[in-house]
Amino acid sequence: MSGGLPRRRLLGLAGAGVALAGAGAAVGAVAAAPRPPEVEGASSLTGAVPFHGEHQAGITTAAQDRMHFVAFDVKTTKREELVALLKEWTEAAVRMTAGQEAVDGGAVGGSAEAPPKDTGEALDLPPSALTITIGFGPSLFDGRFGLADRRPAALIDLPRFPGDDLDPNRSGGDLCVQACANDPQVAVHAIRNLARIGFGRVSVRWSQLGFGRTSSTTRAQATPRNMFGFKDGTRNVKAEESDVLRDHVWVSEEDGPDWLVGGTYLVARRIRMHIEIWDRTSLREQEEIVGRKKGTGAALGQVDEFDEMDLHVKGAGGLPVIGVDAHIRLASHEELGGARILRRGYNFTDGSDGLGHLDAGLFFVCFNRDSRTRFVPMQNALASRDKMMEYLEHTGSGHFAVPPGVREGGFWGDTLFR
Amino acid sequence: MSGGLPRRRLLGLAGAGVALAGAGAAVGAVAAAPRPPEVEGASSLTGAVPFHGEHQAGITTAAQDRMHFVAFDVKTTKREELVALLKEWTEAAVRMTAGQEAVDGGAVGGSAEAPPKDTGEALDLPPSALTITIGFGPSLFDGRFGLADRRPAALIDLPRFPGDDLDPNRSGGDLCVQACANDPQVAVHAIRNLARIGFGRVSVRWSQLGFGRTSSTTRAQATPRNMFGFKDGTRNVKAEESDVLRDHVWVSEEDGPDWLVGGTYLVARRIRMHIEIWDRTSLREQEEIVGRKKGTGAALGQVDEFDEMDLHVKGAGGLPVIGVDAHIRLASHEELGGARILRRGYNFTDGSDGLGHLDAGLFFVCFNRDSRTRFVPMQNALASRDKMMEYLEHTGSGHFAVPPGVREGGFWGDTLFR
Repeated sequence: MSGGLPRRRLLGLAGAGVALAGAGAAVGAVAAAPRPPEVEGASSLTGAVPFHGEHQAGITTAAQDRMHFVAFDVKTTKREELVALLKEWTEAAVRMTAGQEAVDGGAVGGSAEAPPKDTGEALDLPPSALTITIGFGPSLFDGRFGLADRRPAALIDLPRFPGDDLDPNRSGGDLCVQACANDPQVAVHAIRNLARIGFGRVSVRWSQLGFGRTSSTTRAQATPRNMFGFKDGTRNVKAEESDVLRDHVWVSEEDGPDWLVGGTYLVARRIRMHIEIWDRTSLREQEEIVGRKKGTGAALGQVDEFDEMDLHVKGAGGLPVIGVDAHIRLASHEELGGARILRRGYNFTDGSDGLGHLDAGLFFVCFNRDSRTRFVPMQNALASRDKMMEYLEHTGSGHFAVPPGVREGGFWGDTLFR
Repeated sequence: MSGGLPRRRLLGLAGAGVALAGAGAAVGAVAAAPRPPEVEGASSLTGAVPFHGEHQAGITTAAQDRMHFVAFDVKTTKREELVALLKEWTEAAVRMTAGQEAVDGGAVGGSAEAPPKDTGEALDLPPSALTITIGFGPSLFDGRFGLADRRPAALIDLPRFPGDDLDPNRSGGDLCVQACANDPQVAVHAIRNLARIGFGRVSVRWSQLGFGRTSSTTRAQATPRNMFGFKDGTRNVKAEESDVLRDHVWVSEEDGPDWLVGGTYLVARRIRMHIEIWDRTSLREQEEIVGRKKGTGAALGQVDEFDEMDLHVKGAGGLPVIGVDAHIRLASHEELGGARILRRGYNFTDGSDGLGHLDAGLFFVCFNRDSRTRFVPMQNALASRDKMMEYLEHTGSGHFAVPPGVREGGFWGDTLFR
């Protein structure tokens, strides 16, 4: 196992258990090959995505299939303990994203008399394109850690949007960690081991498993479908659009603060979808609400999914083909003064609601350069005018400043705690 | 797309979105090839598993990676409406397991003025080895449907086991449906569409998503790991062991009732695992509790995972190497008068518990010929003596009679309602 290969055994995808004979070389080659700028990990389901870089991985990385997201409360009040934790977490993240155990020694290599330093459930699994992305919530800057004057102006407490029904136990948090991978066991393992390392210093505030991606973040990825059965994210910002990323995703020196340059802001919204009501709505109504054809994903009035939508074309009776309250119109940058966001959400289903229905929906995650001028106006437009809102319920919310990528030898947040 | 291929487009595994150029023929070949007896769908992650047969699929089928399980309450009190529903469900299951939409016409082929007859979120996905397995709970036989005298004697109300902390909202149900697939979106789509078809006649009582299999059911599959980081199910009954299946899994004519011959009993237990406490236990203690080495999965005293365990060998001080309260001893058929079960469980994580921890564990599913003589004595032994119980909490439970496989033209439960 040479050439930067993880020391874990390479098995079939997602625990399928069929040994990938001869795949080691291929995966190693993917992990070691120079990657095109901005398009990380696009070419391998099982290989490793580099951890270090200008930006954190897990943003423009080709959206992996599964996600485990967690928000933590920080329990220690000592700045140096928080910094020590961020350093330990970074080391563990470097290792786990490379397909190694969280800590050297790991599950079975240490003393038999001590608790293992890795929980073991990913021992036999390949890196699976794992990315681990950290964010800092508004409450981290409340003064406990001497950060009160370093809170970014754009890291606002999100306003209450029309129709919000937020559960405080699914909202907020001092820190968030997004783990994405093509094997859910690898993503869950990553979160669980960070929680283990943080024992006594942080506690889990809330967490969310996403079973299926609802966004593409590279041009090579097919557009997936959400729980309404529609293709979602056709017009998403793609990793190849470096100008759009510069203008709408990455925090610049001009934006500040300095410590966040190269970073971004993450907004998470747990959106319960009332799928049983949706399923009793006619196809025409569904397509008018979304503004797209359900089969092809084409914007109304167009033929193919990626045909440019036309917000001006009128149909019978002189009414716009894409209605004034259609979802894709309200969410379009044409109607939002050019504002764009990078979406990276996941379908979820969390059991049932006790009323005879599945508790399912979209765990919306987006990244943007300034949520005040991008996510917030978009969500205000949607929450107040989108006909789809009748079928949605926002039940959780979080806003986090995502620091820039870590350089070799650095740690998550080193620019903040410097 | 000839040769019995599903009409849905074949995309990459699990929504990865990379088109599998040329894969159509291979998948078609797998789906159409004669399968070895008892080993269904073992050779393809994306292909179709046949629906019809002597036994229902999803039992000895090579365990798929993901699961969505649901228990329904029947809301109609009319026997003929229940039978009509079972017929509609069977048609939908035949179609969906073949990679087709739930109903002909489906998501976009019907009238624009009517609700679509398929919810659409699996439109672009291959069959993904989907199996859908139905079971009938004790409450179905309460007299509402004229079935009171057809309840199998073995379909008992499970006893209360030591330490049980069952949530009634995660237990019981008139019907259960287990959907397993290598793509969770395909499994969720199956459950969701059965719920949609059943609207007004059934309602969701509880449901559970399993993100990673914890059992192998064929010899070709590698043994996966559970949330304690240990290989789970090394000694599981395998599809190739037809004698063991005959003796311990399938209901025979001798057992009766007639309508259940070729069927089996499903026991589901939602087992919360207190992983944070486990993670602070020493490696030695963990291995003694399980009775296996964490790395290799070998029984204590042995070298390799599949070496036969020796329950008699003694170590230092004359104590048995595999302790008297070790999990693998208590669960072994050697200590249970020969009783065996086929396990088919899944890891889960359902957010957090509000106390700073992940709500994670094992959704235990097993199949056996008579739960009174197999699952119940095993669970009694474990619940009263297993040291592992300190780290476990049984929070949900269900017991279901699983009817035999459906013949061409038949429907789920036709032997019961005949």
